Amino acid sequence: MANKKPLHIVKIGGHVIEQPLELDLFLNHFNALKGLKILVHGGGKLATQLATKLNVPTQMLDGRRVTDAETLKIITMTYAGYVNKNIVAGLQAKNCQALGFTGADGNAILSVKRASKPVDYGFVGDITQVNSNLFHQLIASQIVPVVCAITHDGNGQLLNTNADSIAAEIAKAMSEQYEVSLHYCFEKIGVLQNIQDESSLIEQIDNKKYQALLDENIIADGMLPKMKNCFEALQGGVQKVCIGKPKMLSDSNFPKTTLTL
Amino acid sequence: MANKKPLHIVKIGGHVIEQPLELDLFLNHFNALKGLKILVHGGGKLATQLATKLNVPTQMLDGRRVTDAETLKIITMTYAGYVNKNIVAGLQAKNCQALGFTGADGNAILSVKRASKPVDYGFVGDITQVNSNLFHQLIASQIVPVVCAITHDGNGQLLNTNADSIAAEIAKAMSEQYEVSLHYCFEKIGVLQNIQDESSLIEQIDNKKYQALLDENIIADGMLPKMKNCFEALQGGVQKVCIGKPKMLSDSNFPKTTLTL
Repeated sequence: MANKKPLHIVKIGGHVIEQPLELDLFLNHFNALKGLKILVHGGGKLATQLATKLNVPTQMLDGRRVTDAETLKIITMTYAGYVNKNIVAGLQAKNCQALGFTGADGNAILSVKRASKPVDYGFVGDITQVNSNLFHQLIASQIVPVVCAITHDGNGQLLNTNADSIAAEIAKAMSEQYEVSLHYCFEKIGVLQNIQDESSLIEQIDNKKYQALLDENIIADGMLPKMKNCFEALQGGVQKVCIGKPKMLSDSNFPKTTLTL
Repeated sequence: MANKKPLHIVKIGGHVIEQPLELDLFLNHFNALKGLKILVHGGGKLATQLATKLNVPTQMLDGRRVTDAETLKIITMTYAGYVNKNIVAGLQAKNCQALGFTGADGNAILSVKRASKPVDYGFVGDITQVNSNLFHQLIASQIVPVVCAITHDGNGQLLNTNADSIAAEIAKAMSEQYEVSLHYCFEKIGVLQNIQDESSLIEQIDNKKYQALLDENIIADGMLPKMKNCFEALQGGVQKVCIGKPKMLSDSNFPKTTLTL
């Protein structure tokens, strides 16, 4: 364990990637993070905007996008095209050797199309395998992978895949060779005791505290699948998970929630 | 010279990438090509279709797209998103270890925004540097790079860049380390003596023949910049250039035009 190299997996979501100025600030914090790192992003709101312009209806079920063929095309154009390449060009301008791709590229992330029963989400993938050799090869060459929320089934089908899950699965797969920290960046300062009160930050959550929070119904709806992802990642070998604002990447004293087993 | 490894740079253009069935046939031919290889593509007609749907006017000058900010966004979504990822997923389904990217990724291809005088083409780039180390690194790891017609200026600006030029510049840059063949695939069987007559194929063109064809005004308008690119590549160290249908990749006896110095 002691001689494993540290590796940071950072997932960026929410409003941050939709505003050019906020994105640039995020990229500064990401760039300041020392050592080996991988960035994972989505771009859902920008995809919804493009769908609206193209008169393609957006259907969400339980916060997940129903992805028909036209929506998959929009997502591929938005995530793998517009968002991914602007992030990469922005990082390159900061002398960060970023290289952007999807889970189809280099067979990086294989997934299986979700069953159409009980709910048909369309072209949505559940991850079955991460090509940790590819990620290892790239980061060992000083490349910073920038991965968007698209995977493939290995038979030519691209699949829309939750970015939180992609970050967690890469983190787990890389834990065999690296000492992995997983960072979820969003607008809030971390997990809050009271979602309306930014001063109610819970700084440390371990398995026992997590169970207690679940029992007390403290964890809000949107945070539930995220926290579940986090603890699965920890059980899968990830050393710690941090949830908070992008500034936590460049300033280790910046408030955040840290999750450990 | 004798111990340089062969490397194939293939540029695919025209109608081939716009039709799913034709694209699949092309990918079969590309996949059958043995040895180290790199694929370069554009996607202009699909970008024009998306621009029409989004009510963004398309302006062409001398066959080149005038690229304002909205058009650049459309091109990035189409080339780096839709086209690149469908090619990559299609190749992966054929067990080809494809990895798709732009010239911004890994700082693969640096360019400079074309001067706005005498004609302002907008966000269009002229290539200044190819990162041959990156391409070498990737192909040495059995990865097949799939590069779309977008580069960057190193300061965060993506730039629309002619795919023929990208293929030629990669080919020249890789000639120091590899024995490079450059293949331009399109709808026609090669360079024709009479553009209306598919049986008038010119099978071999060397520098002397090229000058003679220029003097006789045999080379048609659309072919002129392509041929100029080809001979610049040959002068830059590329061993041969082939122009013809995709089938020339998988069948060395298939008719085509071969250019050498």
